Amino acid sequence: MHYELYYWPTIQGRGEYVRLALEAAGADYLDVAREHGGRGQGMAAMMELLDSRSLAAPPFAPPFLKAGEQIIGQTPNILLFLGARHQLAPQDEAGRLWAHQLQLTVADFVTEIHDTHHPIASSRYYEDQKAEAARRAEDFIAHRLPKFLGYFDRVREQNPHPGGYMVGSQLSYVDLSIFQLIEGLRYAFPKATARVEKQHAGLTAIRDRVAEHPPIARYLASARRIAFNQEGIFRHYPELDR
Amino acid sequence: MHYELYYWPTIQGRGEYVRLALEAAGADYLDVAREHGGRGQGMAAMMELLDSRSLAAPPFAPPFLKAGEQIIGQTPNILLFLGARHQLAPQDEAGRLWAHQLQLTVADFVTEIHDTHHPIASSRYYEDQKAEAARRAEDFIAHRLPKFLGYFDRVREQNPHPGGYMVGSQLSYVDLSIFQLIEGLRYAFPKATARVEKQHAGLTAIRDRVAEHPPIARYLASARRIAFNQEGIFRHYPELDR
Repeated sequence: MHYELYYWPTIQGRGEYVRLALEAAGADYLDVAREHGGRGQGMAAMMELLDSRSLAAPPFAPPFLKAGEQIIGQTPNILLFLGARHQLAPQDEAGRLWAHQLQLTVADFVTEIHDTHHPIASSRYYEDQKAEAARRAEDFIAHRLPKFLGYFDRVREQNPHPGGYMVGSQLSYVDLSIFQLIEGLRYAFPKATARVEKQHAGLTAIRDRVAEHPPIARYLASARRIAFNQEGIFRHYPELDR
Repeated sequence: MHYELYYWPTIQGRGEYVRLALEAAGADYLDVAREHGGRGQGMAAMMELLDSRSLAAPPFAPPFLKAGEQIIGQTPNILLFLGARHQLAPQDEAGRLWAHQLQLTVADFVTEIHDTHHPIASSRYYEDQKAEAARRAEDFIAHRLPKFLGYFDRVREQNPHPGGYMVGSQLSYVDLSIFQLIEGLRYAFPKATARVEKQHAGLTAIRDRVAEHPPIARYLASARRIAFNQEGIFRHYPELDR
């Protein structure tokens, strides 16, 4: 099946969790807003769907995925859909819900990471909320960063299946998301992340294994992988790191 | 099937979306942390599961639901599970994902509502972040509240099925969640909510219909419904309302 991914064209952001899954699956997809070709491509195509007054299932925000006539929004929901179709999640119902539950916890963490630099309003500049960001980032580094990574490492440890993956005994989208979290945290908070990673070598091992997974390695070396930058979820403000 | 719900015993919080679904379904459930009876009940039972070093699928935080041997965490994930079993969501895959997508958007909104009074750190008192809360709440009322409620009302309008529900042509957990959002917003931000509700009478109609749905009406009149209070997600600080 051919997919169309709709997401902001210049950042990794929440869309990156979907891109990683599509790449790991070797799926045939178009990253629509990054295309400059013809009709139905580029940012205009994305905004048209977002603003539609006729869609039966209008998405609230990017990313969303078009699969035939179906439009699926919300990152963890898209991964729930793709995971079942491309063997990127357990196939039994309990395993599928468990992988999804972890992805929802990833999503909560991503929101908290975003809010370290935007604790007051997404619509305002970082410079307009620097003092508040400093306070929020301090709490994030002291409490939330170790809590979330500690939890994910505990999940890995308590996984009864052999292989060193997050869920079951093979690669799932949850591993891909752990990779993305570690990469992003290293970019945004290099000092704090180095400290916390030392205590959770099992997560670093998952990050490394995902990076070396051939379809992901090819993706990371390609122009399709957007570099981290100061517009995305993970931003590097040295004054927020410890 | 008998369920065990695990959630903080003195607040509605995120657990309330699950309570409403269990009540609408007429499900047999125990609200474990609110029980004072014997073994396996009360807060101790909840903390034991949260801290377990042996569970194969340990939850990150309440609420979580025990269904036989399965433990399911993350509110929207619990509703995905219950919706399929108790006819509280469409039965086809596309409809099920669509209802879930809306619940994920409800969850995002709930986090933003919480952060109006705790923009810096959940672990600190409101009094320690009052200035930041005032800034965040101002942006919330000006931009986020109308954006989310406007979106949900558009979803209702664009639902091609007759009946005036959020999804499909019968009551789903999404309608229950809209009820809970409107109730909570009326409690927390009475002035701002009255203004926005005037523009979205269709959402008020869903709220009213859910309140009159017999199992929900019975629940709301019972001692099982915890009153809104200043410990939950929705808190009434008059200085944050406009």
